[in-house]
Amino acid sequence: MSGLFITFEGPEGAGKSTNLKVFAQALAERGCAPLITREPGGTPLAERIRDVLLSLHEEPMHADTELLLMFAARAQHLNGLIRPALAEGRVVISDRFTDATYAYQGGGRGIDPQRIAALENWVQGDLRPDLVIIFDVPVELGMARARARSELDRFEREQQAFFEAVRGSYLQRAAADPQRYRVIDASGDLDSVRQAMQPLIDEVLERHHG
Amino acid sequence: MSGLFITFEGPEGAGKSTNLKVFAQALAERGCAPLITREPGGTPLAERIRDVLLSLHEEPMHADTELLLMFAARAQHLNGLIRPALAEGRVVISDRFTDATYAYQGGGRGIDPQRIAALENWVQGDLRPDLVIIFDVPVELGMARARARSELDRFEREQQAFFEAVRGSYLQRAAADPQRYRVIDASGDLDSVRQAMQPLIDEVLERHHG
Repeated sequence: MSGLFITFEGPEGAGKSTNLKVFAQALAERGCAPLITREPGGTPLAERIRDVLLSLHEEPMHADTELLLMFAARAQHLNGLIRPALAEGRVVISDRFTDATYAYQGGGRGIDPQRIAALENWVQGDLRPDLVIIFDVPVELGMARARARSELDRFEREQQAFFEAVRGSYLQRAAADPQRYRVIDASGDLDSVRQAMQPLIDEVLERHHG
Repeated sequence: MSGLFITFEGPEGAGKSTNLKVFAQALAERGCAPLITREPGGTPLAERIRDVLLSLHEEPMHADTELLLMFAARAQHLNGLIRPALAEGRVVISDRFTDATYAYQGGGRGIDPQRIAALENWVQGDLRPDLVIIFDVPVELGMARARARSELDRFEREQQAFFEAVRGSYLQRAAADPQRYRVIDASGDLDSVRQAMQPLIDEVLERHHG
């Protein structure tokens, strides 16, 4: 049985983390408990890098620094956790992965996607997620939900234009590769999102056992 | 007046830091006070990345993670401090730079130099030090000096074979580009090293004012 690598993507306030729990529980109930992880982070050392990335600093972080830190955390996460789990045949679900880098550092910060692709190849070789599920929500709704939740981190403090670019990047990437990407409308309530995820749960079980 | 970028390189216990102070003071006495900095680090944020790099972790740090963290700190240091100072025409002296990456992560950890070169180009574009001064010392002597000094960091705890590879990388790089690299025998006392640095001080003053 080969492993299956699934990533959950989306802007702030799209409900990714809640939906991920629902998705994972549905898989577990059908005998296929996934490994749940997140980026940036996923191992203690990668979480230390996450702290540097998300904290507020007096010194502005250069966009190249941010991108290299993201991929440093990713290299640790991939080699220490994701690759070994996939090699054991597990389903791995990560709350964010490299599509977030294209969306935030590419769309949001304006780094040329070719420079991101160079690091993606450097770090990942040919490893890509088997399935990317993007939870899409209008920017104002997502920002309102994020603000209501907790203190905002370094990314969450960005302005609306930044998040419009993030959303646009996600949707462009999904449109370019519909086989590997699925977009779920996350503007409704949890029940409607849960229904939209159902066929994906069936598909994951079939691909993993098939 | 154009800036001049000088790096001091060498293994543990080669006396780099002491020699750097002597070198900088000699320049300052002749009216050319340099900006002194170091890697990894050089800005508050890059120093935070240095902490992650040098601390001991329970989780082994993957070689790719280490290399990406080095270049993340370097991107911050270059864009936040080194490039602006060079643009103002200053002499910048950094205690370690990318040659240390080739020596430690390449020679020491065995990362393919071509993978290092890819990140060097990604981060630095065509910026390279104008002058690299390598302080060379036999490995056993350097290790004995480092051990006598203070508690050992994550790199200083490596074994003799690691440092032999580090030294070999430095000397190979110097031999391949004698115009840009100078090797100083640092096995003797401070006076002999000071004498060996004298012609380099004259050269730096001439190149900077010339």
